Parts: sequence; structure tokens; C-alpha cells
Amino acid sequence: MPHIGIVLGSKSDEPYFQEALRTLEELGIEYELQFLSAHRHPDKVREYASKAATRGIEVLIAGAGGAAALPGVLASWTSLPVIGVPLPTSELKGLDSLYAIVQMPPGVPVACMSIGAWGARNAVLFAAQILSLKHDSIRKAYEAYRAAQRER
Amino acid sequence: MPHIGIVLGSKSDEPYFQEALRTLEELGIEYELQFLSAHRHPDKVREYASKAATRGIEVLIAGAGGAAALPGVLASWTSLPVIGVPLPTSELKGLDSLYAIVQMPPGVPVACMSIGAWGARNAVLFAAQILSLKHDSIRKAYEAYRAAQRER
Amino acid sequence: MPHIGIVLGSKSDEPYFQEALRTLEELGIEYELQFLSAHRHPDKVREYASKAATRGIEVLIAGAGGAAALPGVLASWTSLPVIGVPLPTSELKGLDSLYAIVQMPPGVPVACMSIGAWGARNAVLFAAQILSLKHDSIRKAYEAYRAAQRER
Amino acid sequence: MPHIGIVLGSKSDEPYFQEALRTLEELGIEYELQFLSAHRHPDKVREYASKAATRGIEVLIAGAGGAAALPGVLASWTSLPVIGVPLPTSELKGLDSLYAIVQMPPGVPVACMSIGAWGARNAVLFAAQILSLKHDSIRKAYEAYRAAQRER
Amino acid sequence: MPHIGIVLGSKSDEPYFQEALRTLEELGIEYELQFLSAHRHPDKVREYASKAATRGIEVLIAGAGGAAALPGVLASWTSLPVIGVPLPTSELKGLDSLYAIVQMPPGVPVACMSIGAWGARNAVLFAAQILSLKHDSIRKAYEAYRAAQRER
Amino acid sequence: MPHIGIVLGSKSDEPYFQEALRTLEELGIEYELQFLSAHRHPDKVREYASKAATRGIEVLIAGAGGAAALPGVLASWTSLPVIGVPLPTSELKGLDSLYAIVQMPPGVPVACMSIGAWGARNAVLFAAQILSLKHDSIRKAYEAYRAAQRER
Amino acid sequence: MPHIGIVLGSKSDEPYFQEALRTLEELGIEYELQFLSAHRHPDKVREYASKAATRGIEVLIAGAGGAAALPGVLASWTSLPVIGVPLPTSELKGLDSLYAIVQMPPGVPVACMSIGAWGARNAVLFAAQILSLKHDSIRKAYEAYRAAQRER
Amino acid sequence: MPHIGIVLGSKSDEPYFQEALRTLEELGIEYELQFLSAHRHPDKVREYASKAATRGIEVLIAGAGGAAALPGVLASWTSLPVIGVPLPTSELKGLDSLYAIVQMPPGVPVACMSIGAWGARNAVLFAAQILSLKHDSIRKAYEAYRAAQRER
Repeated sequence: MPHIGIVLGSKSDEPYFQEALRTLEELGIEYELQFLSAHRHPDKVREYASKAATRGIEVLIAGAGGAAALPGVLASWTSLPVIGVPLPTSELKGLDSLYAIVQMPPGVPVACMSIGAWGARNAVLFAAQILSLKHDSIRKAYEAYRAAQRER
Repeated sequence: MPHIGIVLGSKSDEPYFQEALRTLEELGIEYELQFLSAHRHPDKVREYASKAATRGIEVLIAGAGGAAALPGVLASWTSLPVIGVPLPTSELKGLDSLYAIVQMPPGVPVACMSIGAWGARNAVLFAAQILSLKHDSIRKAYEAYRAAQRER
Repeated sequence: MPHIGIVLGSKSDEPYFQEALRTLEELGIEYELQFLSAHRHPDKVREYASKAATRGIEVLIAGAGGAAALPGVLASWTSLPVIGVPLPTSELKGLDSLYAIVQMPPGVPVACMSIGAWGARNAVLFAAQILSLKHDSIRKAYEAYRAAQRER
Repeated sequence: MPHIGIVLGSKSDEPYFQEALRTLEELGIEYELQFLSAHRHPDKVREYASKAATRGIEVLIAGAGGAAALPGVLASWTSLPVIGVPLPTSELKGLDSLYAIVQMPPGVPVACMSIGAWGARNAVLFAAQILSLKHDSIRKAYEAYRAAQRER
Repeated sequence: MPHIGIVLGSKSDEPYFQEALRTLEELGIEYELQFLSAHRHPDKVREYASKAATRGIEVLIAGAGGAAALPGVLASWTSLPVIGVPLPTSELKGLDSLYAIVQMPPGVPVACMSIGAWGARNAVLFAAQILSLKHDSIRKAYEAYRAAQRER
Repeated sequence: MPHIGIVLGSKSDEPYFQEALRTLEELGIEYELQFLSAHRHPDKVREYASKAATRGIEVLIAGAGGAAALPGVLASWTSLPVIGVPLPTSELKGLDSLYAIVQMPPGVPVACMSIGAWGARNAVLFAAQILSLKHDSIRKAYEAYRAAQRER
Repeated sequence: MPHIGIVLGSKSDEPYFQEALRTLEELGIEYELQFLSAHRHPDKVREYASKAATRGIEVLIAGAGGAAALPGVLASWTSLPVIGVPLPTSELKGLDSLYAIVQMPPGVPVACMSIGAWGARNAVLFAAQILSLKHDSIRKAYEAYRAAQRER
Repeated sequence: MPHIGIVLGSKSDEPYFQEALRTLEELGIEYELQFLSAHRHPDKVREYASKAATRGIEVLIAGAGGAAALPGVLASWTSLPVIGVPLPTSELKGLDSLYAIVQMPPGVPVACMSIGAWGARNAVLFAAQILSLKHDSIRKAYEAYRAAQRER
């Protein structure tokens, strides 16, 4: 059963998460990856988010660009922590995505990471920090990763 | 039966639409006004948008601030034209709302107006222009309004 | 007789509309395409916009970059709905075009789409939504397009 | 016969030009002041700009806010030098007006000044510099003004 | 023993957290509040962050303005999840704080919330979501809060 | 004797003015071109600007990037009209140059054009408009250029 | 003989430096304060900067707003370290001043501080750090100030 | 014993400092170069900064990108003057780094230079200006460099 559910708005967003997925594998944390657009597949997004907790998922990560509604829409349908990664757009460079994710009105939080591949990597590390509070094995893997990182 | 459905994210957004509503009354166009948050009431937003067309509504207008998902979420649930009005936020002044509304990815359009009360007024005028294509009485009222505006 | 009139400020703007024009053909909606600069050909722009409605055109779409006056100038000469697409500029990346189109003062609305090719595609889809209110055949084509989009 | 024609988009823009007008009077340069909106009165703007040169006007100054098309539209109808003053807007603070005025595409220039009252004053001083090239009396008045300014 | 440690850069930041603290009390989650500047008290910040986990704290929240290093500096000294709240500054309105918090390079994540009081409230709600994964009583309190919020 | 003096901050700025210089030749307006940095050669800039008017120069054009002081420094040493062209910088894309040129405090005006090659071309056209007020041959050449431009 | 020369563009800039001047007095560092505009008094600025080193001044501090050329112009006339403080402007809030000061091209450096009163205070503290390298009494005063600051 | 300590957040930042290091060699000023991340190696950064003054270092230069805490963290651990160079990031182009460095709250100053390689070069020139106040040989080398620069 995956701990983390990752949702991307489109197939073309996947390269930004390549290194992030490798990090999850290095940490040995199970995850699943979906491609769902908040605007084109609202029903599937609702279904996925509503059932995530009962399926055992503990953290959601969503990457989206432009009017990046995906993280907030997921958060509207679940009480699980949602981490949002603003993805670059060709002209506004992800500043649009950043504002659309970070400026959530009070009531329904989304945890915003930095723009693009940096943020995708930090999203999985932040998920690992959350899961470490509850799962000893993940905590150990994360501490080992962080110690190794200090040496590099 | 109202032609236009207006949805605002919160009661505190209403002042930005005051003059816009007066303009609709001046034009004699029927409308209804709802207060629904995309993030706090996703189910009600879905229900409202999904049924709007069958209830006879022809244009939706949504005002929202910050990570302003409301216009895009409405548009994800309906094929009616959706007009979005970015509302000012206390620090980023509605630039966040603007990006979150105008930068819709291709596939599900939202028509973005200017920030705040200016945009609210233009939203109802743009709705009047759309309705004028089909309803003669609205076209006449709109043309009269515009002629009067030129004189002022 | 075309339903939609598209006006671009210069020949070099056409690539941004390539996929948008293909979408119109896919939808089977008739359109015409003009190259007119608001600043270099003000007389032709005035003539085109003033006569568009009597020629049967129902929606205008304009793409422009920089001090992108074209959509607003068209709107100043006609009561038809005008959809504006901010096109990228080499340095400010279309943020200048976005502000020059979206921040219309109250009285003469323009419906602003996202920057560049995304916005061009959404402009024609938004025009299709407007025309769907009146033309059954367009509504059917648009609903079919949208259903297919959901599957992709 | 006035040397300078000043056009403002609305009566509410006048306070930004108060000190500028006082400066013109101090310099003894004749001017006229019009209130015309590029979007609401396109015909009057066209007529005013087209006839300005034959009426003896040598420089046009235009102040406008938001999608500030006025200076560029004036410039599209005349060969006289046009000076544009971006006026503050309530949310974007005139950054929208600045982009809409300064980012003119090549072919039809507008001389952009700073935002608001600073820019209005500099617009009349810049007009005085232009007129000084041709009119000795204006040159003397301008040089005296500048010398006095150095002392203050 | 508090679950949440909140650190603010200065006493003057407290008003932004007033409603957030009330929300924590409503949820019945224990917390502690410190005033420590990353730049003026680096030793105390180091000590606080290094010992937080062993003292039983599970989530850190930090609010800071300007070159807002506090959340990242806390995160550099601990493996606990750190939530950052960008606080408004008098001129750049917290956009500086936002960039300084959200754009963390990969390796050491910080979860960024919206600017100001909105973000402070969402920070405590996000902390509640994290704690809900492990603590049943907090999950129940949070679900009740959220249900009540939907009714308001 | 040249009518127009063009000053660029460095040799590397010249490509932005290539087409502008060609336009001046097309118009048959004499000019001279200098390479002087406001910050590295303040004495030469002072000398050049102070003597320009007595040498018969009527308009100055300056292109500069970054903390683009050159146009303002020229204007501080002369009463001739100074036209500033903000040049692109590698990271901020000329937005820094734009602010440093356009936001002149009241008292010493600079006429700002658009960023980069667009602005360079408009600078020479604006200079031609200024010179047209006084020189009939330039006015004729400029009007012919503009008529040809309309045809293209 | 003052160690520090402070130059402000206008009398109205003085309030931003009030607390900074108090800090200098607290530190017992001698300074002098001038009001000189880079654009209106280029000759006096040149004279002041050229002679500062021979008069015994060791650090220059300049505050300016808008197209804030003052720090760079001072730096063009002297080899002393120049510290620049961007002052707020009414619309762009000092972002214009920041870009005009910080983005100095390579060759003539200016040390930029934060916008407004924060930056003015840091400018005098940074000057104290520079002077501490050479003057033991200033170093002691500065270290005492910093220790006291840690306690507050 | 080096006069200047340069700290970069990562090996990949070195190219921005290539020309700067060459300038230091041209000036004959001794320096040392470290690679330390504020977030990944907080202990080493603390140790380096705390001991720099006793090791004879007189000026610190730090280059960092994104949430660029490094210059401020160094400054929190030492009383030496710290010069910060904001390095470009792939999406926000170093605007994030600029804000994170320049907007230091009052109390702990950092001298901010321009973004990227420009700023790196100016950082070493500014360090040379500081050291010139105390070291005659450096002053002579710096004056010779500046005179040569004027000729180029």
C-alpha cells in the first residue's frame, strides 16, 4: 500500500519529478503516480482525493503549472496533508503557478514548495519528514539520507 | 429564470460587485448571486455548476481572491461561458488572483476581467454582450447603456 | 459567412494561433483571419470593427504583444464580445501584453485569455462556448470536442 | 493658439496634472486640456488627434491608467510627438499603465514618463525642451526655470 | 508537552498569528511560542531547533519577513517538518519574504504558506493535518473543525 | 553637423541599435554615435552632454542596461531632449533598465522607449518627430516613411 | 573630521534616516549630511564626491528614490566605498529604486541595502563594520552595540 | 593569510565567480574559496564565520541562489563586513536570490551586489575598496586597475 500519492496535471510534467521519484526509491518509500487534470477531469480528481485516506495514503503531492488549481482542488476533497509543486510555464516561468498554489485562502491549507524540479525533490523530502513522525523505518531512512547529503 | 449566475467566494467579496449588480439592474438582466468557496464547499460548487445550464442560466461570473480557483473549478463542471474577476488581496493586491484566473491551461477557458470593482463591472457588461447575440431585448438595453455612457 | 473574426497585429503572431485555427476547423466553425496593427492601421481597424456585426460576425478574437492596444481598440468600435490573447514579447515575456489587455477600465470589456498559444486555443474554445448558446450545431460540436478531450 | 494639447482619460485623472499645469503657466506656454477616453470616445479621440497639427498644436501629452491605450491611440492618428504619462491604478499601482504605454511596438513611438504626478510634471518639462528647439522665448523661459530649480 | 513549536522573528510579528493561535486553542493542540531572530540570535535558534525533537515537538512553524531566513535556518538544524509563513514588509508587501521562504534549494525542505495572517492560520491547520496522521484525538478535533467550517 | 547624438554604454549594446541606425539613414537624418559609460567615464559624459547643444545637436538618444544611469546623467548636464532606451540584461531582462530610466524624479525628464531593439527604433522615429517640428525636409522624409510603413 | 558622508537626494528623504543617524550618534561615529540631487545638481555631486577622500571621509552613504542614480554617480567620481539605500516611491514602493541601485554593471560597485528605513539603519551598521577594520575605537563601539542588540 | 573569504553554496556556482577571481589575482589580493551550503552544512558555516576574523580575514563574500540565506547566516555569526551576490535561478532568474539577500531586516547588514557574474566582479571590487582604506598596497593596485578600466 503506497504512503504517498503523487498527482500531475499532465504527462509533460513528469520530467520535473524524475529525480524526486528516484529519491523516493532511494528512501524506500512506496508511492503511486497519477496523471489527472483539475480542469479536464474534475470527477476523477474528486474520486481520487476522496478515497485516498481510506486506501491508506497518508500524504498527497501535486505538481501543476499556470492557473495551478490541482493541489487546492485535491485539498478541497480530503483532509490529508497536500504538498504543491508549482511547475514552470513557458512565459511567466512558474510565477503564475507559484501564486496559484501558495496563496490559498485560510481554511484549506496547501504546503507550497519551490518552483520546478527543486520543489519536486523537496516535496518528497517533506513527505518523508511527515511520515517519519509515525513510521520508524522511514525516519531511519530519512536520517541516513540526510547524513549522506551532508557529506556530499 | 436568471440569465446570469454570479458566484463569490465569500460574503466579504460583495462590495466589489455592488456597482456591477446595479448595472445589471439598470440593464434589466435577471441574475442570481451565490456565496460558495471552491475550497471549502467543493460539492456545492460542483452541484451548482453542473445544473446551471439545465436551470436556464447562460453565463457564469465568478469573483475570487488569492489562489482564486473558483472560476476555473466552475468551468471544469460546465460548458457555459465562465467570466472570472480577480479580487484584490491585502498584500499581493490581486496579482495572485489575476495569475490564478487568467493563466488557464488550454482546454477549459475562463474569460478574465481586470482586478476588482473595474473587472466586476466589465464582467456584467461582457455577459450583456454575450446575451445580446441571442436576446434582442438585452441587445437593445445594452446599446442604450453604451450610448448613454458615451455622453457622460 | 464567418461567425468569428480573428485579428492579429502582425504576420509574425500567426504561429501562436496555429493550433487554435486547427481547433476551429475541428469544431467546424467558420472564421476569417486579418492582419491589422492598432497603431499602424487605425483606420482599417476602425472599419473592420465597425462593420463586423453587420457582416454577421458574432465574436472577435485579437492577439497582440507589448502595448497590446488591439483588443481594446476593436472593443471601442463595436458591441460584439472581444476576446484578447496577450502574445509573448522577447523581454517581458507577455506580462506587458497581459496588463495592456486585461486591465481594461470599466465601460468597455475585453475577455482576456492566458499568454500565448495556450490563450489562443482557449480563445477559440471560449468563442465556441458563446456561440453554443445560440447555435445548436456548434453546441453539439463543442460538447463532442470536450468529451473527447476528457478521454485523451 | 496652444502649443501643447493635453488629453486625460477621465476627470478623475486631473489631480495628477495639477502641478504640471502650474508649471506650464509658470513657463508661459499655452496649452489646452481635453477629457477623452480612448475606449469610450474613439471617434472624438480620432478627430482630436487628426486635426491637432493643422490647428497649430506641436506636442501632445496624454495621461491614462490601466490598459492605458490613450497615448498610443493618439499617436496612431497623428505624426506629432506624443508624451505618455502612466497614471496609478488602485491595485497594480500604475505598473499596468506603465507597461501599456512604454512597450509600444516599433513604428509608432510614444515617449513614456514616470508614473503619476512625477511623470506629469516631467511631461510638460519634456514638451518645453522640444518646443525650445524652435521657439526662442520658450527656450529662455525653460532655461530660467531650470536655473531656478538648481538653486532651490 | 507541546506538539507544535512556533518561532517568530520579532514581537511585532505576533498580530499576524493571533487568529492562528486561537485556532490551535479551538483544536485543543498544545503549542509553545518563541521570539527568536535568525540573524540576531543564531545561537539560540540553533539550540532551539536542535533540541525540539527530543523535547517531543513534532512540527515547527516559523513566521518571518524580508530576507526571511528563519524557517530555512530552523530546517537546517532539525529533521522535523518546518512550516514557513512569509510576513508582510512595508514596501515589498511580503513578496520578498515569500521568495526567501518558498525558493528553498533541494535538500532541506520548508513548507510555505500564503503571506500574512491567511498563511498563519493555514500553517496551524496544516500542522493539524500532519499530527492527525498519528494522533487520533487531533484527527477528530480537526475533522470537527473542518465540518463546522463547511457550515459557516 | 549631426542633428542627433546617440550614446551607448558599451560596444556590446550596438546590435540593439542596428536597425535603428538603418532607419536614420533611410530618413536621411545625420547622427553621431559614441560609446561612453556613465559610471566608468563620468567626465567624458559630462563633456559630451555639456557641449552637445553648442555643437548643433538637437536631440540625444541613450541606450543603457541594468542600473541604467546614462540617459538621466546626460539629461543632468544638458537642456536638450534626451530619449532613453532600456537595454535587456541577462537575468532581469531589462526590467531593471526600464525602471532606472523611466522613473525619473520630477525636474529632469527623460523620454523612455520600449525595451531593446523595439525601443531603439522608436527612439529614432521619436527624434524624427521632434525634428520635424522645425525642419521641413525631415518632416517630409518622416511622413513618407510613415506612409510606406502603413502599406507594408 | 567626519568618517562618513551621507548624501540624500532631497530633504523629504530625511525621515527614512532618522533612526540611522541616531544609531551613528549612539556609536559615536562622526558624519556629515548633504542634500544633493544627482539630476538637478550634477556639478555639486561631482565636487562633493571627488573631494571626499582628501577631506578624510572614508565611506559614503546615499539614499535615493525612483531612477535612483545618486549612489552610482557618487561611485563614478570616487574610489571610496559607496553604500546605497533605495528609498520608497509612492507607486512602485522602491522596487524601482532597488533595481536602479543594485543592478550596477561591473566596474563600479555600489553596496545596496534593503529598501527604506531598514536599509538606512543597516547602511550605517555596515559602514561601522568597514570602519572597524581600521579604527579600534569604532570596532569596540560596534561590538558593544551588537552585544546589546542580542540582549534586547 | 588571505584578506578575503569567499563562500559559495555549491560547486555549480563557481562559473559566476570566474572573472571575479581573475580580477582578485590581477589586483594581487589574497583570498580563499569555500563551498558550504547554509542549509546543508549549518555547523561548518557557523565555524567558518565565527573564526574568520581571528584568522585574519577582513571581508567575506558569499554567492547564493534561491532562498539565498548564506550571506545573512554568515553575517549572523561574524562582525566582519559581508558582501552578498545573488545568483541566477532557472525560473525566477535570481529575483528570488536578490530579495533573499538585499531585504535584510535592520541589525545585521549584508551588502548586496547585482545578480550573477556582474555582481561577483563588483563584490571583489567593493572588497578592494574596503581594504584600500587600510592597506596602501591594495589601494595602489585598485587605483591602477580603475585607471586602466577608464582607458579600455
